[in-house]
Amino acid sequence: MRSINPQEKFEELVGFIKEVCHKEKISDVLLGVSGGVDSATSLALSVRALGTSHVFPVLLPYGELSDQGTKDARLLLSHLKIPESQIQIIDIKLLVDALMTLDPLMDEGRKGNVMARMRMVVLFDLAKKHNYLVLGTENKTEHLLGYYTRFGDEASDLEPLSELYKFQVYELAEYLEVPEEIITKDPTAGLWEGQTDEKEFGFSYKTADEILYLYSEEKLSKKDIVDKGFDKEIVDRVWWWIDKGFLKDRLPYTP
Amino acid sequence: MRSINPQEKFEELVGFIKEVCHKEKISDVLLGVSGGVDSATSLALSVRALGTSHVFPVLLPYGELSDQGTKDARLLLSHLKIPESQIQIIDIKLLVDALMTLDPLMDEGRKGNVMARMRMVVLFDLAKKHNYLVLGTENKTEHLLGYYTRFGDEASDLEPLSELYKFQVYELAEYLEVPEEIITKDPTAGLWEGQTDEKEFGFSYKTADEILYLYSEEKLSKKDIVDKGFDKEIVDRVWWWIDKGFLKDRLPYTP
Repeated sequence: MRSINPQEKFEELVGFIKEVCHKEKISDVLLGVSGGVDSATSLALSVRALGTSHVFPVLLPYGELSDQGTKDARLLLSHLKIPESQIQIIDIKLLVDALMTLDPLMDEGRKGNVMARMRMVVLFDLAKKHNYLVLGTENKTEHLLGYYTRFGDEASDLEPLSELYKFQVYELAEYLEVPEEIITKDPTAGLWEGQTDEKEFGFSYKTADEILYLYSEEKLSKKDIVDKGFDKEIVDRVWWWIDKGFLKDRLPYTP
Repeated sequence: MRSINPQEKFEELVGFIKEVCHKEKISDVLLGVSGGVDSATSLALSVRALGTSHVFPVLLPYGELSDQGTKDARLLLSHLKIPESQIQIIDIKLLVDALMTLDPLMDEGRKGNVMARMRMVVLFDLAKKHNYLVLGTENKTEHLLGYYTRFGDEASDLEPLSELYKFQVYELAEYLEVPEEIITKDPTAGLWEGQTDEKEFGFSYKTADEILYLYSEEKLSKKDIVDKGFDKEIVDRVWWWIDKGFLKDRLPYTP
């Protein structure tokens, strides 16, 4: 795995954000801020690229479930000195529960997708209202593993972190002085109480990144990777997620 | 403009739908049926490709607004002999209005986007629940003009009509014996009372198709098209929509 040069990457991505805004003739971006490291890093980057007054964070908790996320998000916003008047907090419970009245037995997996998509609906509506661009927060690890909801958290106008593996997002987060609380906590998609990404994967981000890097950057086969000493069962599990990522990438089919 | 050979196109698209289902190892499709010609043609095609028992139409009216659409959709479903037990009708008013409580002054444009996206949320949730593929109903004319909502009506797993201009969709609809009521009525996205696509465009689908065909298939420039005798003002207006389509196609930006 190759570490980034944080300052170079920072400058590159700041340039990228500025360039997209310039091309689209839109001076402001909006993004969903969950309290996790990806959105925190994206927010810190945007502020450095466009200036505090051009970045509009939106917190989208689901009722009480996301309390820790909301707390961390607010900590970050005060750390970045973003004025209260620029911050919106919209509880998506009303929207999600409206759909659940039609099907109260909806399982956690479906509910997670509905939550991600309702957040998209709110973000794009606000962006349309105020003429902002929607800045996405997806990283390369999530993308390769298919760990996102189509037309949900992957939906955006620009994706500054899309070429960074999760460990590289952390490197950039450190450089941008994202609060330690956010950097050290377990990553979670906030889908249910106590959910963490790594429990859901069945492997750590560290292992995932090592394997994904060999696969995607060094073009090694599954067998080559096992031969390098990785546990076969873990590699199989990573591959199961990679296949899921492929499936999402090849949709929709056209004649 | 070149007419399709309806029987050949029919066979090709039936093959396409079958092939996608086979690849994805999913035997059923679900689609939103609005009462318009695109979804009617898509539904008739799907029934011929997979058999009546493998096609699940979903009607997604917004309160009373879509009454004519719902009536036409039901006519089509009885014409195609799809059993009531396979049909779902879900009023999206509850979902859309839940978001509007946050912003009661939302304009018609934003509301149209929210409606399209709420339909997407419902369709993908049902598809996940039952393990269906979501069949999209977008045609080439709409796509080139950018006449769709990102992450809304354009969101799907397969798009059988994506290579057909609107006039070719009509040719296929005739071949598939879609009811005359649906073929002869003015196309509408059903965004507000009395809305028709052509009023919104400021030109007819016929004119749009003629100009788009010269532009996209014969690679003529705007000037060439005006020189062929088309009204400059109309060509300008079509181009305004084409630019809108381009904008949507190039999003999201990545570094």
